[in-house]
Amino acid sequence: MTQIRVETNILQANDEVARQLKEKFRAKSITVINLISSPGAGKTTLLEHSIPRLIKKYRVGVIEGDVLTTRDADRIAKLNVPVVQIETKGACHLDANMVLKAANQMDLDNLDFIIIENVGNLVCPATFELAEDAKVVVLSIAEGSDKPAKYPTIFTRAKACILNKMDLLPYSNFSLDEFYQDIKRINPQMKVFEVAALRETGLDSWLEWLEGMMVNGGQKD
Amino acid sequence: MTQIRVETNILQANDEVARQLKEKFRAKSITVINLISSPGAGKTTLLEHSIPRLIKKYRVGVIEGDVLTTRDADRIAKLNVPVVQIETKGACHLDANMVLKAANQMDLDNLDFIIIENVGNLVCPATFELAEDAKVVVLSIAEGSDKPAKYPTIFTRAKACILNKMDLLPYSNFSLDEFYQDIKRINPQMKVFEVAALRETGLDSWLEWLEGMMVNGGQKD
Repeated sequence: MTQIRVETNILQANDEVARQLKEKFRAKSITVINLISSPGAGKTTLLEHSIPRLIKKYRVGVIEGDVLTTRDADRIAKLNVPVVQIETKGACHLDANMVLKAANQMDLDNLDFIIIENVGNLVCPATFELAEDAKVVVLSIAEGSDKPAKYPTIFTRAKACILNKMDLLPYSNFSLDEFYQDIKRINPQMKVFEVAALRETGLDSWLEWLEGMMVNGGQKD
Repeated sequence: MTQIRVETNILQANDEVARQLKEKFRAKSITVINLISSPGAGKTTLLEHSIPRLIKKYRVGVIEGDVLTTRDADRIAKLNVPVVQIETKGACHLDANMVLKAANQMDLDNLDFIIIENVGNLVCPATFELAEDAKVVVLSIAEGSDKPAKYPTIFTRAKACILNKMDLLPYSNFSLDEFYQDIKRINPQMKVFEVAALRETGLDSWLEWLEGMMVNGGQKD
């Protein structure tokens, strides 16, 4: 019982920091996306192939969460966008305080989007609000079509799902029928984008959706 | 600071329960394996194709950890082995208390192996001892060869790694060179088994290793 109480307090404290941080982002008309997936579902690769197209029209910053190493941040930095790395030192998720500290290192007057790449984990990141406008879950075809039913928290709370590595579909036992039936039951409003990020297929609809998510219609005050 | 202290206390309390539970398993000459991976790396499929061969010689019980649903437990129950399901109701890992409760529901006098399938998560399960004789990490080729470096805790603590979905190698950018170089640096003693569980390839060495892990040389008192 003690453990549960502690966790509730941690979540409440987190939500309060997230609420304040969201006001800050709103005041600067910055749209914030929280990218969540299992390890290796392809979050970084998705960003590597999305950001070069996004920055043709918008100013994008990235916050990279990792348990250890700066590998993902190094990959994103090559795209010539501002990147702030958060090394969680063992923690399995980002929290709003970490994102607040990262945001304080960014030039918020010169950003339209902040994309947060969360720690690779389908469980805990789903419950920690990071002042995002949308959680986006990335699911790799190789992970199997039973994942929405088995990890419903993230699939309920995400506004969009990138169904990634679609090129592996012929070599896997992933059932698109099962996947879409479960999504319809768990989160019928969720947008699904069928993508192969590494092959750059299916990115158009995802990028259009991102544009549509912009706060204040993308207008800076 | 409070949060960190709380977590340390939780881990210490867990280790104490695990220590007592391990004595119990030892007294019954039961070998316990803790299977850890990201969601969808193939833990359940590995068990579906390993257990039918293992039960030709040994008595095997399974403890199934899942955040929600009994899907994996249902799949294992079809193999006609005793299965106890632990639904963690949101927790991202199993702890020793959960395993103790599950073990109390099993006929320990009639088991040689207990295989624990942990919650799909590469981070937190690595730090919670479950009275196992070995942690085994399952990594899918589709997750990418950078995972040992990015999630070193589990790759340091595991005694063996199942490199699963080897059949996807031609269609992925997984580098076996990078993988083996990182393993050599992080955990040179770790055994690696290249497997495609769904295709039943590479299972022999893994099953032989499991036999070699048996406590008291597999002899019941």
